[in-house]
Amino acid sequence: MANAADRRQIKFGAILTGTGGPGDQLRWLDPEIPGDASVDIDWYIEYARLAERAKFDLVFIVDSQFITPHSPPHYLNRLEPLTLLSALAVATERIGLVGTATTSYNSPYNLARRFASLDLISRGRAGWNVVTSGDAGTATNYGLDEHFDYPTRYRRAAEHIEVSQALWDSYEDDAFPRDRETKVFLDPERQHQINHDGEFFRVAGPLNIQRSPQGQPVIFQAGDSNDGRDLGGRYADGIFTHASNIRDSLAFAEDIRARAAAAGRNPQHVLILPGARIVVGDTDDEARAIERAQHELSNSFDIALAELGRPFGWHDFTQYDLDAPFPDVLHLAQRSFRTNAESIVAFAEKDSLTLRQVVERLSAFRPSPFVGTASTVADRLQEWFESGAVDGFNVYVSHPAQFRRFVDEVVPILQERGVHRAEYEGKTLREHLGLPFPANRYAASTVVETIADDTLSAVR
Amino acid sequence: MANAADRRQIKFGAILTGTGGPGDQLRWLDPEIPGDASVDIDWYIEYARLAERAKFDLVFIVDSQFITPHSPPHYLNRLEPLTLLSALAVATERIGLVGTATTSYNSPYNLARRFASLDLISRGRAGWNVVTSGDAGTATNYGLDEHFDYPTRYRRAAEHIEVSQALWDSYEDDAFPRDRETKVFLDPERQHQINHDGEFFRVAGPLNIQRSPQGQPVIFQAGDSNDGRDLGGRYADGIFTHASNIRDSLAFAEDIRARAAAAGRNPQHVLILPGARIVVGDTDDEARAIERAQHELSNSFDIALAELGRPFGWHDFTQYDLDAPFPDVLHLAQRSFRTNAESIVAFAEKDSLTLRQVVERLSAFRPSPFVGTASTVADRLQEWFESGAVDGFNVYVSHPAQFRRFVDEVVPILQERGVHRAEYEGKTLREHLGLPFPANRYAASTVVETIADDTLSAVR
Repeated sequence: MANAADRRQIKFGAILTGTGGPGDQLRWLDPEIPGDASVDIDWYIEYARLAERAKFDLVFIVDSQFITPHSPPHYLNRLEPLTLLSALAVATERIGLVGTATTSYNSPYNLARRFASLDLISRGRAGWNVVTSGDAGTATNYGLDEHFDYPTRYRRAAEHIEVSQALWDSYEDDAFPRDRETKVFLDPERQHQINHDGEFFRVAGPLNIQRSPQGQPVIFQAGDSNDGRDLGGRYADGIFTHASNIRDSLAFAEDIRARAAAAGRNPQHVLILPGARIVVGDTDDEARAIERAQHELSNSFDIALAELGRPFGWHDFTQYDLDAPFPDVLHLAQRSFRTNAESIVAFAEKDSLTLRQVVERLSAFRPSPFVGTASTVADRLQEWFESGAVDGFNVYVSHPAQFRRFVDEVVPILQERGVHRAEYEGKTLREHLGLPFPANRYAASTVVETIADDTLSAVR
Repeated sequence: MANAADRRQIKFGAILTGTGGPGDQLRWLDPEIPGDASVDIDWYIEYARLAERAKFDLVFIVDSQFITPHSPPHYLNRLEPLTLLSALAVATERIGLVGTATTSYNSPYNLARRFASLDLISRGRAGWNVVTSGDAGTATNYGLDEHFDYPTRYRRAAEHIEVSQALWDSYEDDAFPRDRETKVFLDPERQHQINHDGEFFRVAGPLNIQRSPQGQPVIFQAGDSNDGRDLGGRYADGIFTHASNIRDSLAFAEDIRARAAAAGRNPQHVLILPGARIVVGDTDDEARAIERAQHELSNSFDIALAELGRPFGWHDFTQYDLDAPFPDVLHLAQRSFRTNAESIVAFAEKDSLTLRQVVERLSAFRPSPFVGTASTVADRLQEWFESGAVDGFNVYVSHPAQFRRFVDEVVPILQERGVHRAEYEGKTLREHLGLPFPANRYAASTVVETIADDTLSAVR
């Protein structure tokens, strides 16, 4: 561990989804998981603390806002991410707290304020996973006849981020002298209106909360479309993505970094963090067997049939004959899932598949790259990391026993090898991720004085 | 204490405003108070726990969303109430958690979801103080040219509450069997769309979170206008108001209860909770002296001049000659502060006052009814309570040493007399306040079966 401090470290997130997530909708059948884990704050506290014990960079809470009676369990019943993360803020000390919130159905003033508040409550650990709402049905919960179309949603997302970041700069870092002698609470010169007037938002400001410990909460982005990648390249500090193989991941990372550079940013300040399904066994074969057993437990034909509905506007496929040709549903495709819907229809047509065959193919077992003994898993993670394809991994906290094995068996190996921290060096999420503290856009540019302490004493 | 369990108990709230509040804007000058108390979660945790040790019913967090450089300290910099309360939820165990949120600039789906989430995180302790945004400037933070006018705001508030309460009933209490044998997670018959289509909101639902432990988070209301009282009578479980004298408070309580009865509600289920400024001394005279000293410390001419601006749209009065007649500013009055503005202008004109004289009169010392030795304060609180004018008090947690004296000296007297609980009897805020658990509007009315266990065994 001699050179641990010199080595670039793997970043780790823990995806906490309670009773399950996409591709893992029946996880709640596992007797180790409380049936109400998705709304049980104690479940989240337990796993956030476990991730913190393993010196993870962050926990990540997903979200969506439209459900039907046919929605898989994961969508039906969950805590709202920011209230959940505020509770975790006082139940943990160091780990970053990242939550999904949509730009489609929130006002920037409300949302920027809540993330600033979380950043203050957590003493600098807040992160925002910026999403646009993909499900058209969400509009019906917000009084709109039509969902924003895809390009509109992405333009709105970009403007939403810009307004939020401006609001977070409403106050300069030293805006509140709170001087009891002079009775000066605020220096009004260091409070700024933003006076934004754009396509979607007009916001005067200032925000009614001081600049938060990170200056700006950390921005994450998870969309994989062209517009999503652009948004990530322009604004995101971290990208949540998928891991298929190193070659594809490397191409993805290079694409994102090129977009960041084109936007005038330092491409090293956009971290690539694919989701990682990790399974640890006493032997590689045992791990593979556990992985397959998990797949059998966590998936069912009925759930896969329900999930198939999403790209087609949560269409109810139970009405069709399973053994008839795949039905003609392309016209039902939701705009934001269009590519997905088209590819499903295309492969159904290509091989003249029945509905049953389509569902079976979609829910087929796909082995993860990160399965084996603790040492195999550590090797694989390190190999991906050192290839330059990724900066770290967002680990699915699916089966609790498995997450504990990762923490107890894999993490120590990575620490021993010096590629994962043995202790937190910093206090904020920004510091964990090696991201710079952002200057306030409204601060008068001042020459940073570098007078040494003893020189200063001599002056006095 | 023999008959404590039989007696009606005084309800207590603790108003936590950090560095100060209206009429107390310079509290931050008190060396015992951290200058950043309003954004310091540890300050809130400390006082919430102290209130919980004294078996208070609730803590209360105020809010507003528009500031200028001239705003008093209290407005400039504060945590957002729901993120703050979620953090307090895991730092406390029993005390109710009530936060202000405006119906003017929130969507019901977002807000109902956050309160349901807080109710789940706190295991049944969430309360919502429903307000309409009074400051016209708030509109500039939400892209509107004009603030909603007064009657519009109140119609919107009523509809917002109705939509929220319907959303909270999206799921029946037993909607999630989560049966591992049958693999049934949701009973879709017990999930309900609300399909609301009103003047301000169209919301399909269902909410994406199960019915919360209280069935419905508790509703509070604080407006004193005719429309505010109507809203309170129709929807509120508790009313936050002001305490001037018993006679006026009794008239207020009777008015609210009459409105509740007219709306078909049980008037005993609307609790009247005036704010109470409490000062405890070793003698009554010492307490009065402490009260006056607090007034001297916490108020200043400049702050009072700034606060005068609010009814007139946060008008900047520093531009006028203090010793000239009160300026002609009535046309600047904000609609929601119109009565207030008119009465200020009227008394200025009646006595031909200068601006300085108006400010001095507005910030003049007004003694609280609840000042004296611990025994005097206990007598006074009990006298008000037993008159039927109030159901309890919302105590300003202003000077920390004073709040500790209240907890350590006054509370035990009230407990000894049997008018304040010695221990929490219930777990939820609803239970603390003696409010019934609301039936779900969508549940099929079923005959409650009262088959004893052994009868059931016999049937099997």
